[in-house]
Amino acid sequence: MSLRIAFAGLGIMGTAMVKNLLAAGFDVAVTNRTADKAGPLVAAGAAFAATPAEAAAGRDVLVLMLTGPEACDAVLFGPGGAVAGPGQGLGPGGVVVNMSTVPASYNTALAARLAARGATLVDAPVSGSKKPAEEGTLVILAGGPQEVVERLTPMFLAMGKKVVRCGETGAGSVMKVSVNVLLGTMLAGFAEMLRLGEAGGLDRRTMLDVVLAGPMANDLLRMKEPLFENDAYPAQFPAKHMAKDVKFAVDAAYETGAAAPCAHMLVQLYRRTVALGLGDDDFAAVIRAL
Amino acid sequence: MSLRIAFAGLGIMGTAMVKNLLAAGFDVAVTNRTADKAGPLVAAGAAFAATPAEAAAGRDVLVLMLTGPEACDAVLFGPGGAVAGPGQGLGPGGVVVNMSTVPASYNTALAARLAARGATLVDAPVSGSKKPAEEGTLVILAGGPQEVVERLTPMFLAMGKKVVRCGETGAGSVMKVSVNVLLGTMLAGFAEMLRLGEAGGLDRRTMLDVVLAGPMANDLLRMKEPLFENDAYPAQFPAKHMAKDVKFAVDAAYETGAAAPCAHMLVQLYRRTVALGLGDDDFAAVIRAL
Amino acid sequence: MSLRIAFAGLGIMGTAMVKNLLAAGFDVAVTNRTADKAGPLVAAGAAFAATPAEAAAGRDVLVLMLTGPEACDAVLFGPGGAVAGPGQGLGPGGVVVNMSTVPASYNTALAARLAARGATLVDAPVSGSKKPAEEGTLVILAGGPQEVVERLTPMFLAMGKKVVRCGETGAGSVMKVSVNVLLGTMLAGFAEMLRLGEAGGLDRRTMLDVVLAGPMANDLLRMKEPLFENDAYPAQFPAKHMAKDVKFAVDAAYETGAAAPCAHMLVQLYRRTVALGLGDDDFAAVIRAL
Amino acid sequence: MSLRIAFAGLGIMGTAMVKNLLAAGFDVAVTNRTADKAGPLVAAGAAFAATPAEAAAGRDVLVLMLTGPEACDAVLFGPGGAVAGPGQGLGPGGVVVNMSTVPASYNTALAARLAARGATLVDAPVSGSKKPAEEGTLVILAGGPQEVVERLTPMFLAMGKKVVRCGETGAGSVMKVSVNVLLGTMLAGFAEMLRLGEAGGLDRRTMLDVVLAGPMANDLLRMKEPLFENDAYPAQFPAKHMAKDVKFAVDAAYETGAAAPCAHMLVQLYRRTVALGLGDDDFAAVIRAL
Repeated sequence: MSLRIAFAGLGIMGTAMVKNLLAAGFDVAVTNRTADKAGPLVAAGAAFAATPAEAAAGRDVLVLMLTGPEACDAVLFGPGGAVAGPGQGLGPGGVVVNMSTVPASYNTALAARLAARGATLVDAPVSGSKKPAEEGTLVILAGGPQEVVERLTPMFLAMGKKVVRCGETGAGSVMKVSVNVLLGTMLAGFAEMLRLGEAGGLDRRTMLDVVLAGPMANDLLRMKEPLFENDAYPAQFPAKHMAKDVKFAVDAAYETGAAAPCAHMLVQLYRRTVALGLGDDDFAAVIRAL
Repeated sequence: MSLRIAFAGLGIMGTAMVKNLLAAGFDVAVTNRTADKAGPLVAAGAAFAATPAEAAAGRDVLVLMLTGPEACDAVLFGPGGAVAGPGQGLGPGGVVVNMSTVPASYNTALAARLAARGATLVDAPVSGSKKPAEEGTLVILAGGPQEVVERLTPMFLAMGKKVVRCGETGAGSVMKVSVNVLLGTMLAGFAEMLRLGEAGGLDRRTMLDVVLAGPMANDLLRMKEPLFENDAYPAQFPAKHMAKDVKFAVDAAYETGAAAPCAHMLVQLYRRTVALGLGDDDFAAVIRAL
Repeated sequence: MSLRIAFAGLGIMGTAMVKNLLAAGFDVAVTNRTADKAGPLVAAGAAFAATPAEAAAGRDVLVLMLTGPEACDAVLFGPGGAVAGPGQGLGPGGVVVNMSTVPASYNTALAARLAARGATLVDAPVSGSKKPAEEGTLVILAGGPQEVVERLTPMFLAMGKKVVRCGETGAGSVMKVSVNVLLGTMLAGFAEMLRLGEAGGLDRRTMLDVVLAGPMANDLLRMKEPLFENDAYPAQFPAKHMAKDVKFAVDAAYETGAAAPCAHMLVQLYRRTVALGLGDDDFAAVIRAL
Repeated sequence: MSLRIAFAGLGIMGTAMVKNLLAAGFDVAVTNRTADKAGPLVAAGAAFAATPAEAAAGRDVLVLMLTGPEACDAVLFGPGGAVAGPGQGLGPGGVVVNMSTVPASYNTALAARLAARGATLVDAPVSGSKKPAEEGTLVILAGGPQEVVERLTPMFLAMGKKVVRCGETGAGSVMKVSVNVLLGTMLAGFAEMLRLGEAGGLDRRTMLDVVLAGPMANDLLRMKEPLFENDAYPAQFPAKHMAKDVKFAVDAAYETGAAAPCAHMLVQLYRRTVALGLGDDDFAAVIRAL
C-alpha cells in the first residue's frame, strides 16, 4: 500500500518535489506558512491543510523541506504543530523525514525528541538544486534505520534518481554538509582562478575554454560557465544558502576537532558575498567577494 | 620544412614528450644534466649532445622542460649554455620554448634577456601530467607572438592534443599557475570533505560514490578515486610540484594585488604535505596534512 | 543597605570571587553542582544552599560564574532552578548578573526570558583570569541599565579593580569576546614569531629578550615568558576556554557580517591545541599546534 | 680609533640615523640616489659623495639603509657601485652593514658574494621606526661574526639604545622578520577587535579604554591609540613596508617549512590595505581592509 504523505515547506524546492510526488500517484497533504503557495499543487491534486497538525493527521510520513532548525521546530512543536499535542497530528509509528539542510547535531537531538513521542526521524537532505528538483533527478542522502529508509525508497525515487543510505539518523546531514564543502570550494577555486588570471592579463573566455576542455570539467562548471561569462549570477543555488551550509561545516568541525581550512575560508567568502548584498544571487557570485 | 628541435630536460615529462616528437618525425637533439636518461631516446632516433650549446647549435627551436628558474638559467646562460657564448649554441632568430612551470615574471624577464641576443621566447607550460604526456594529449598553454606560436603549432600538436594561445610571452605561465590553483583547490576540498565526513561517522567509500555520481564528478576526481580509496598516493603529479606552483600563485597575487585566499590556504597545506615527507607522493596526499 | 547575594559556580574563578565578596562584608549564599567545593567558603562565612532556588530565595542578586549557556540554563530554569518555579527562588525585582563568558546573543535572549519573570539581567564577564580573581583586580565588563549597573558597582568593586559599563545588556559579552580575540591573536602571533625564528636558527631566549625590551612588551607577554622559556604550559587561562571564546567570536561575526580573519585563524589553532590533548594547558600551548 | 663610515640611503630612517652618527662625532660620507636629500646632513658635517664607490673609498664601513634587495644590489654592484670595480670603492677588509630589511636568504647569499671580494657582511636591521630613529633609541638586530659586531657596537649605539647579536650573518634579518610578524599580528588583532565590537554595538573609545587599562596595554598600542580614535592613519610605519616584511616571512616559512598561519593572513590583509591605496598610511590602516 502506498505511503500517505504530509509535506511542509513549499519553497522552490518543496513545490517541485510535491509535483513529482503527485505525478507518481502519491496522496499528499501540503501545508505552508503562507497558504497561497499551495494553489497550483491543490490544482494538481494535493490536499491543503491549514496547520501541520491537520496535514499530518492520519498520514504515514511527514516530509519537512524548510529553511532551518527554527522552522522545523515551529512545524513540529509550535502551535498547530505536527507533533505538538496528544491525540492529534502525526500518529504513533509515524515517520518524520527531514529533507531540510540542518546541522547533523540538530537532527540527532530531534530524533530523540521524536522517539519520546513514538515517531521515527529519517534525515534526508538532497544533493541538487532547482533544476534536478523539477526533473526529479535529486540525489537523496538518507540517514536512518535501514528498514525505514527502504520503506521510504519509492517515495524518494519519485523525487530523485538515487537514494544513498549514508548511515543512521544524522548521517544524511553529515554527508550533505561535507559534500557542500566540496561544492563551495570548487566554485571559490574557480572564481579565484579567474581573478588571478585576469589580474595577470588573461581573457576570461580563454580561461573558461582551457578548464572546460580539461580533466577538471564537470557538469557543475558547465552549469556555471554562462554565469561567469556574462558576469551575472541569477540563482541556481543562492549564496546565502551556501553561506549557511559552510557555517554548519565549521560548527561540525569545531565539535569533532576535524581540520577544516577550506570550510573556514568558505564561510568568510560566502558570508562576505551575502554582506555585499548578493545573498540571493547564485553562489558563483562569490567572485565578487574576491 | 620541419622544425629542427633541441630539447633540454629529460625527466618523466620530458622523456615522454621527446618520444612523441620523434614518433611524429621531428629531428631532435637531446641534452640532460645526467646523460644516462638519454639512452632510450637515442635508441629511438634522437641525437645526443653533451651540452645545451652543442644541442642547440644549428637548431630552430630549443625546448626547456626543467624544474625551475635556476635550471633554466643554467641551461641557457651557464657554462656550455645554449645562449651563453657568441657564435655558438642557438643562432640568431632562434626560438626558446619554455615549457617548464616557472613564474610568469621570470619568463617576462627572460624574454628581454633573449631578445637582446636575437632570440624569441615563447612560454608554453602544459596542462596534464605523466599519462597525457605519454599519450600525447597534453594541453599546451602558449604565450608569445601569434605568428611564432602558429609556426610552433605542428611541434606542439606532436606532444599534445590542443594548443591554446593565451596571449603574449608570459601569458602561458599565468594560465598554468591560475589553473593549478583550481586543481589544488579541488583536491584540497575533496580531501577536506572526506575528513569532515569521516569525523562525522561516514564511510569513505560511500562519500566517493556520492560525489562521483553527481555534478562534481570529473576525470580528475575519477583519477584520484583509487588513491583515496586505498589511502595510498603514488605520484601522478607530486605534492612538491603543487606546493611550488601554488607558491608561484601567491607570489603573483602579491605582485598584482589580486585576492588569493585559496592560494594562501593551498601553499600552507601542500607545503605541510611536503614537510611531512610526502613531497614525492601525489598531491592527493594533502589529505594527510588535514 | 548592602546587597544580599547568591552565587552559583564555584570553579577556580568563582571561588576566588566569593572569597573577595565575603572579605568585603557581603552576605553571600553559594551553590554548586558539586557541594564539596563550598567547604572553604562556608568556613569563611558563606551560607550553603543545596539548590539555586534555595540560594536565590530572598536575595537581591544572583551571580552566575558558569561554564556556558547549558549550565546557565540549568541553574536558572532546571529542576531546583533559581527562577524555575513560582513563589520560590529569586523574587520579582531580582537581578541576575551573568559573569560567565557566553555569546552575547544568549544573554540578549536570556534578558527577555527573565524580564517575563520580573527579573533584570546584567551581563558582566570579566577580563583577567586566576590571579586577578584572587587579588580582586579583575576588570568587570558590564552590560545593562545604567542605574542597575551603578547599584551593583560596590559588589563589582569587591571582586575587581574597575567596572566598565559597555552598554545595554549583552554589551559586556560583546566586549569580552572582542577583547579575547585580541588576546588570542597576541599569543598566536607570539608563538608563530618564536617558531619562525627557531626555524631560521634563532635562539628562543634571545627572541624573548628582544620582544620584552621593546614597544610590544606588556604584562601579558611578561606573564607568558616563563611558559615559553620552559616550554611548559601550566594553565593560567586554559586553551579550551580560549577555543570556546574565539568560536563565539566566529559565530558573532557570522551573525553581523563583520570580517574576522583573526578569529577564524584562532579557532582553528586553539581547537587543534585542544585536539592535541592540551585543552587544560595554558592557551600559550598554541605553540604546539604550529 | 673611530670607524670611518659611508652611508647609503637617506630616507626618513637613514637621515635620522646619520644625524645621530654625526652628533656622536663619527666621520660620515653620505650618498643617495637623489642628491638633494643630503643637504641638511652636509650642513651638519657629513661629506657628500656622488657615487657609492666614491663614498666607500677609504672607509671602514659601508652602511646600507635601502628599500630592498634591488637597491642593495645597485649600490654595491651597479655602475659606480661600492664594490663594483677593482681598486676603488670599499677596500679589502671593509665591512658592509646592511640595515635594510631584506630576506635573510638575500643577506646570506650577499655575504658569500662580498667574501669573494674580501669584505665582510653584517646584517643589522632595526626594531623601531621614525621616532626611535630620531631619538637614537632603535634596537639593532645584528647578525655576523662576534668580533665584528663588537667592533661596530659604538657605531650602533650612536643610532640605537641596544644591540642584540642574534647569531651569524642573516640572523638579524630572521629576527627582524619574525618580530615584525608579531607586530603585524598585534595590530591586525587590535583592528579586528575594534571591528567586531563596533559590529556588536560597542563604542570604539570604550574598547580602547578597556584594552589600554589591561594586561595587553603596551607602548605600541598607546602609540596607535590616537590613530584609531581619530580614524586617521598618518604613517609611523607605512603599511607598504609591513606588507613587504610579512611577505618575507611567508617566503621564509615556505623555505623552512615552518607553519605560518599568522603571516599568511597578514600578507593578505596588508597587501589589501596597499591595494586600497593606503600603502603610505600607517599600518594601523589595516582596519580599513577589514
